Amino acid sequence: MKLYDCTPAPSPRRVRIFLAEKGVEVPTVEVDLRNGEHLQDAFRGINPDCTVPVLELDDGTRITEIFAICQYLEDRYPEPPLLGRDAAARALVTMWNTKIEQHGLGAMSEMFRNKARGFSNRALTGPVDYEQIPELVERGRKRFEQFLSRLELQLEGREFVVGSDFSIADITAAVTIDFAGWAKVGIGDDRQQVRRWHESVAQRPSMQA
Amino acid sequence: MKLYDCTPAPSPRRVRIFLAEKGVEVPTVEVDLRNGEHLQDAFRGINPDCTVPVLELDDGTRITEIFAICQYLEDRYPEPPLLGRDAAARALVTMWNTKIEQHGLGAMSEMFRNKARGFSNRALTGPVDYEQIPELVERGRKRFEQFLSRLELQLEGREFVVGSDFSIADITAAVTIDFAGWAKVGIGDDRQQVRRWHESVAQRPSMQA
Repeated sequence: MKLYDCTPAPSPRRVRIFLAEKGVEVPTVEVDLRNGEHLQDAFRGINPDCTVPVLELDDGTRITEIFAICQYLEDRYPEPPLLGRDAAARALVTMWNTKIEQHGLGAMSEMFRNKARGFSNRALTGPVDYEQIPELVERGRKRFEQFLSRLELQLEGREFVVGSDFSIADITAAVTIDFAGWAKVGIGDDRQQVRRWHESVAQRPSMQA
Repeated sequence: MKLYDCTPAPSPRRVRIFLAEKGVEVPTVEVDLRNGEHLQDAFRGINPDCTVPVLELDDGTRITEIFAICQYLEDRYPEPPLLGRDAAARALVTMWNTKIEQHGLGAMSEMFRNKARGFSNRALTGPVDYEQIPELVERGRKRFEQFLSRLELQLEGREFVVGSDFSIADITAAVTIDFAGWAKVGIGDDRQQVRRWHESVAQRPSMQA
C-alpha cells in the first residue's frame, strides 16, 4: 500500500491520524497541492478528481474519498475499532462522521475557499475551476457556528462524539476545529463541552500525525 | 424498526429502493415536507437536523444520514450485499457512492434549491433558513454536467457503477438522474453508457419503491 498525501492539508491528515490510532505505517507520496501538482496530468492519471488522500493497494486499486479509505483500513486492521463496535454503533459513527463532514468541515471549506486569495478560481476541489462566490463566505461562517452549537449539544454527557469510544467522528471533528483555528475561527467561550472534548483529544499522540 | 419517509422526495427513496432490493418491509411514517412538518417541534424532537429519512430502531435509537441507515440494514440483512462483497469492493462502493452524492445529487440539489420558488429561503436542508444564491443555479448545472461525463467514463465496460454487482452506488446514481429528469435536466444524447445503464437499472422492480 501507499498513501498519496499532502502534509499541510486537513483531508489527508484525517487518514494519517486514523493510521496512527491503528499503529499502522504506510509509505506516503507527498503531492504539492500548493503548486498545483494535483491538477497536472501525472496526478490526474492517479485520481481524475484531483484530490488527496488516495490509498493505492498493492494490486494497483486506488481508493479515494476518506471514509472509503478508512473503511478499507478498518477491514484490514480491525483493532482498535474506529468505525464502531457493533451494527448500531457503526451506524451512529457513520452518521456523525457524515454530519461533521457536511456541516463542519464542509462549512469551513466553503468559508475558506471562497475567501482566500490563493483560491480565487478554485472555490471547489476537482479538475474544473469554479470562481469564488462572496456570499458563501458569510454563509459558511454561519453554518460553522450552527455546527459548533450542534456539537456542543451532542458532547453533553459524552466523552467522545459517539459515547465512550473514540472514533473517526472524533478525528473528523478535531481536524475540522484545528482547520478553523488556523483560519482564525475559534470554538467560542460558551461552548464548554466542545472545549473540554477538544483539549482531551488534542493530547492523543495520533493528533501529531 | 420504522422509517420516517416522504414519498415524493429523492433522499428517502434511496432507502426504500435499498429495502426493496433486500426484500425487507419496514413500516413507514409519512412526513409532509411540502407543508413544513419536518421543521415543526414534533419532528425536531425526532431529528434536530430536520431531514428524512430517519430509521428508528426498536430500542428508540434513531439513525439519520442515508449511508448510515443502509450500513445498518446491510449489517442486519446481509443478502444480497449492496455495499460490496469484500474489503476492496466495499471501499470502491463507498467511494463511488460518496462521489455520486457530492457531485451528482449535491450538484442537482444546489441547482434546484437555489432556483425553485418554493425554496426561496430554504436553499439548504436543516433547521436554519438560508436564502437562495442565484450564482449557485448555474454552478450546480455545470457541476452536474461534469458529473454525468465522469459517470459516462466509469460505466464504459462496466455493467454497474462498480463492476458486475448492483450496489448502493447504482441506487444513488439512478435516484439522482430521476431527480434531474423531474427538474428537466436530461442525460444528454452523447452519453450512451449512462443511457444504457439507466435503462437497465430502471427496469428493476425495486425502482418502483
